[in-house]
Amino acid sequence: MAASVDRIREVVETYVRLVGSGTSDEIVALYAEDATVEDPVGTDVRSGSAIKEFYSTLDGLEQESRLLALRIAGGEAVFHFEIVTRADGATYTLAPIDVMTFDDEGRITGMRAYWGDADMVIG
Amino acid sequence: MAASVDRIREVVETYVRLVGSGTSDEIVALYAEDATVEDPVGTDVRSGSAIKEFYSTLDGLEQESRLLALRIAGGEAVFHFEIVTRADGATYTLAPIDVMTFDDEGRITGMRAYWGDADMVIG
Repeated sequence: MAASVDRIREVVETYVRLVGSGTSDEIVALYAEDATVEDPVGTDVRSGSAIKEFYSTLDGLEQESRLLALRIAGGEAVFHFEIVTRADGATYTLAPIDVMTFDDEGRITGMRAYWGDADMVIG
Repeated sequence: MAASVDRIREVVETYVRLVGSGTSDEIVALYAEDATVEDPVGTDVRSGSAIKEFYSTLDGLEQESRLLALRIAGGEAVFHFEIVTRADGATYTLAPIDVMTFDDEGRITGMRAYWGDADMVIG
């Protein structure tokens, strides 16, 4: 049976929280073993250890994240969220829209992040 | 060559405007001939005349629409928009998040709309 709406909502909320204030190990634990990540859409699809490497770039950064909108349908989720990074006195704000698929236990099987360079706001 | 970011933005803005105040013929003209529509995600995929039938249900309704957020990457778009329908003294507000793919000329080749019954607000 597909993961429930409540379970998917819980995983997405946890993901957004961890991207802001968690570790790459915690984020990777949300993924199924054979998951794929395409971030941003149009770039190479990552899998296996490349997913851990990808999230490792967030480790140690001073960040905040929040969920702006979430829609769940057919066992998939799409959500708009914001990540604010503070570094060297500047603030970098990125608000991608991600599509996620899940296995029956609610592990993430696929993530595709839609954003472009024009969507990064530096303040 | 894939459709440009500017062309994709123009098509999405036109689509959202037409869903609010256009005709089903105008909306269908934005689609490629072999396009597919899955609305909401998890239901049967429509193609051909079934796409026209689907949008025909909007003809004659008193509606307003607006684009809330749009992200474009890898020749695809994802966007959050709102449709407000007024009927029989009530207001029905639905704000789906749609994913769209395009051909090289910017015609829509696929649309998948994420929303659930819980996302319809009746006022």
